[in-house]
Amino acid sequence: MSATRRLRSCAVSELVDSSRERAQVAALAGDFLPRLTDWLRIPSISADPEHRDGVAASARWLADALRLDGWPTVRIWEDAGALPAVYACWPSDDPAAPTVLVYGHHDVQPVDPLAEWLHPPFEPVAVDGQLFGRGASDDKGHIALHLLAIRAHLAATGRAAPAVTVKLFVEGEEESGSPHVVELLRAHADELACDLVVVSDTGMFAADVPSVCTGMRGLIGAQVTFRGQRVDLHSGQFGGAVPNPATELARLVAALHDGNGRVQVPGFYDDVREPTDAEREAFAKLPFDQDAWLAGPAAGARATAGEHGWSTLERLWVRPTAEVNGIGGGYQGPGSKTIVPTEASAKLSFRLVPGQVPDKIVTGVRQFVAEHTPSGIEADVRVEGGVPACLSDLSHPGVGAVVDAMSAAFGQEMLFSREGGAGPEAIIQAELGGVPLAFLGIGLPDDRIHAPNEKVSIELLYKGAEAAACLWRLLGERAEQVRRTP
Amino acid sequence: MSATRRLRSCAVSELVDSSRERAQVAALAGDFLPRLTDWLRIPSISADPEHRDGVAASARWLADALRLDGWPTVRIWEDAGALPAVYACWPSDDPAAPTVLVYGHHDVQPVDPLAEWLHPPFEPVAVDGQLFGRGASDDKGHIALHLLAIRAHLAATGRAAPAVTVKLFVEGEEESGSPHVVELLRAHADELACDLVVVSDTGMFAADVPSVCTGMRGLIGAQVTFRGQRVDLHSGQFGGAVPNPATELARLVAALHDGNGRVQVPGFYDDVREPTDAEREAFAKLPFDQDAWLAGPAAGARATAGEHGWSTLERLWVRPTAEVNGIGGGYQGPGSKTIVPTEASAKLSFRLVPGQVPDKIVTGVRQFVAEHTPSGIEADVRVEGGVPACLSDLSHPGVGAVVDAMSAAFGQEMLFSREGGAGPEAIIQAELGGVPLAFLGIGLPDDRIHAPNEKVSIELLYKGAEAAACLWRLLGERAEQVRRTP
Repeated sequence: MSATRRLRSCAVSELVDSSRERAQVAALAGDFLPRLTDWLRIPSISADPEHRDGVAASARWLADALRLDGWPTVRIWEDAGALPAVYACWPSDDPAAPTVLVYGHHDVQPVDPLAEWLHPPFEPVAVDGQLFGRGASDDKGHIALHLLAIRAHLAATGRAAPAVTVKLFVEGEEESGSPHVVELLRAHADELACDLVVVSDTGMFAADVPSVCTGMRGLIGAQVTFRGQRVDLHSGQFGGAVPNPATELARLVAALHDGNGRVQVPGFYDDVREPTDAEREAFAKLPFDQDAWLAGPAAGARATAGEHGWSTLERLWVRPTAEVNGIGGGYQGPGSKTIVPTEASAKLSFRLVPGQVPDKIVTGVRQFVAEHTPSGIEADVRVEGGVPACLSDLSHPGVGAVVDAMSAAFGQEMLFSREGGAGPEAIIQAELGGVPLAFLGIGLPDDRIHAPNEKVSIELLYKGAEAAACLWRLLGERAEQVRRTP
Repeated sequence: MSATRRLRSCAVSELVDSSRERAQVAALAGDFLPRLTDWLRIPSISADPEHRDGVAASARWLADALRLDGWPTVRIWEDAGALPAVYACWPSDDPAAPTVLVYGHHDVQPVDPLAEWLHPPFEPVAVDGQLFGRGASDDKGHIALHLLAIRAHLAATGRAAPAVTVKLFVEGEEESGSPHVVELLRAHADELACDLVVVSDTGMFAADVPSVCTGMRGLIGAQVTFRGQRVDLHSGQFGGAVPNPATELARLVAALHDGNGRVQVPGFYDDVREPTDAEREAFAKLPFDQDAWLAGPAAGARATAGEHGWSTLERLWVRPTAEVNGIGGGYQGPGSKTIVPTEASAKLSFRLVPGQVPDKIVTGVRQFVAEHTPSGIEADVRVEGGVPACLSDLSHPGVGAVVDAMSAAFGQEMLFSREGGAGPEAIIQAELGGVPLAFLGIGLPDDRIHAPNEKVSIELLYKGAEAAACLWRLLGERAEQVRRTP
């Protein structure tokens, strides 16, 4: 099926009716905010060894909440060296029902710089329809909406068990790069088996432009260190006569892109699957206001930049990139210290798009560094992770059901967007045997995830719960198309 | 007089005899090391606000020692906002005697990284003829040799007062860039008036290649900060579509030099006084072993580098440079944090050679930054200091006397070297009305000044004391040529 057909196949001429689910979400919403607020108080920062107890407490909170809601199977997984993940399963009473695995995470980003938070990050408050707190959008809010959704689904349909078997896999290390997700997926392959993965850790284009995410970029991280002489040297006594690792590293970084913003890593674009005209058209339909984006989500960035010949949305969603996340070397304190530094380091990240193979890009990065290491400099390259890009197959009926459920909840046809970021989704998809992926997320670009003053729209949490409740019904109705052929 | 003549005019066909001074240095040396060791115990780190008491204690130690030795005038200067400097004067009893001002400093560099010191930096120890401790060479050892020298001079000549009026100006902020030296020089212009400045804060080419320094490079510091959006942005959500300040700063740094190692700051070479053939020949006479230099003083640097067409010594002494002393931006902690950083900064230093005018170079640096600031980036440039290069006028009889005194002490003709570093010497020279400068220093390239395990050769301290004692006699004998015409 052509990409054009795929994109068009999801167009809904008549919206599904989710008014019953909406009514039940409203009826059951009384304890939604108090519960989510409780959970957000737990500082489950996976990157910080001092908050490991927080991750464990957060997992216990979620497990208790699921048990209270009647989920028949609830487990805390701490094997494989991972911080606690939560698994739950609520089997359908229909033996023909498909199985859906909801993926999300309960760990959160660090909170630095703390001084910039208007309210303390772990003392959540609701202001003007927005719930503020670390994890509100990324990702506890998304998990919480599923707790509400399944209750609304049961109430709306009068069922004792859901129309599909719903599984939850709520990771505790996503914000740390999911270092043990492969081990968990392999150790629990049977429990996690499913016909469809619904990822609830993404966003929409805008509050008034509801959209469904159709893919995420992949990621490779690389730390490049250039070392010169053994110790810092006096820049007067030695400067100008020995290689300066900071200068040389700057030259490597400067060589990463050409004048057209194209990444110069050998072979970088070889396997890039260029977006189709239909995909570019779909993105062009989104009402993107560049000035508003710069001033708002992009935090006052003064200009756009990037690869020539592509729009800002295309640069973010379908073009691979190379970015410097950090650079450092020599003296960075107050005043001056006139040295030739002994070493300098840069943390680079490469965002990958469909087609690119992480291992090949890593090889290219190592070759690029070798080609840009001058005489007198010793280079060290450490590669971190490696996640390919992932795409939703819009022709799959399960993915179509998500689009229909979101359209029902929002009362309008969905547009299609992408995520520029990366998570373990491609790995989950691969480990679960190429299971189709769909994205059901209600985050917004100005939710300030990973930044101070993270928030989530409370109204959108309810819309998301309505969409998920509707989705379980639709997937039950479309069971035959959704179940994977054995 | 041509440069060739100048360099040749110092050649000594017959060495001056300093055997009497040598004998008196030996006779008086008994308390030399114990006293210097006492002084070195005082942590007079001017850059560290926590060690301000140490600078004051060091000044008191020196003042007490001078008084004990019989210097008629001893003052601690704490005016003009400066950390304590020490001034002393021992007038000659000959009304026709010239006046010499010895310049040095009693503050020391910070001691980080402390773990690399084999002996604690402020617990000096003598091992195999070397005295280890912070300040041993830079610069307390050099000041201490003058205390011994004047006593040896008096004993060797049987005088009650020196043959020349000797003044000491021992600064307490040299290692912090001498921020108040102009104010001190102006506030005490009458006391500091002299016919010759003898700088004792430099080194020789090698222990077995005694040499006289004939000049120092100048210095400008500049901190360049590139700012993008207000906060760090998620590199997945925004990377590839907004300018990255770290990448852009790397491009600026990479553009600082062309492929031939020439600094690309506009006008950088316009006023450079190229070294004469005679000067290049003088440097070529020095037995420079590049491999030994790389392995030893240059701390294992793996290759030479720099401006094409010049030798290593020329690159260090007579060519201007641009160096990155530090660079930083974004996330530099363990692991990764996938952000587009809000800003990045580089500390640059420019070494200047004779002819270059600091103010013009500063203008050029600002222009260079402006030309390399891309759309979407806000640049901030902070300039620090600004010291021109300085040169000894080798045709001046006072400078010639220093060369003769050093030749006498070492029993061989001096070769001529330069210093790549910068101090306030050019400013002192200018503020004192263009007084001639001479350098009497016995540091060695492997003294590890500004680094862990700083040391000084004890034998060379005695040689330096002998040279200084001899110098006071020679300057008295040559009073008429040395005194400045009124």
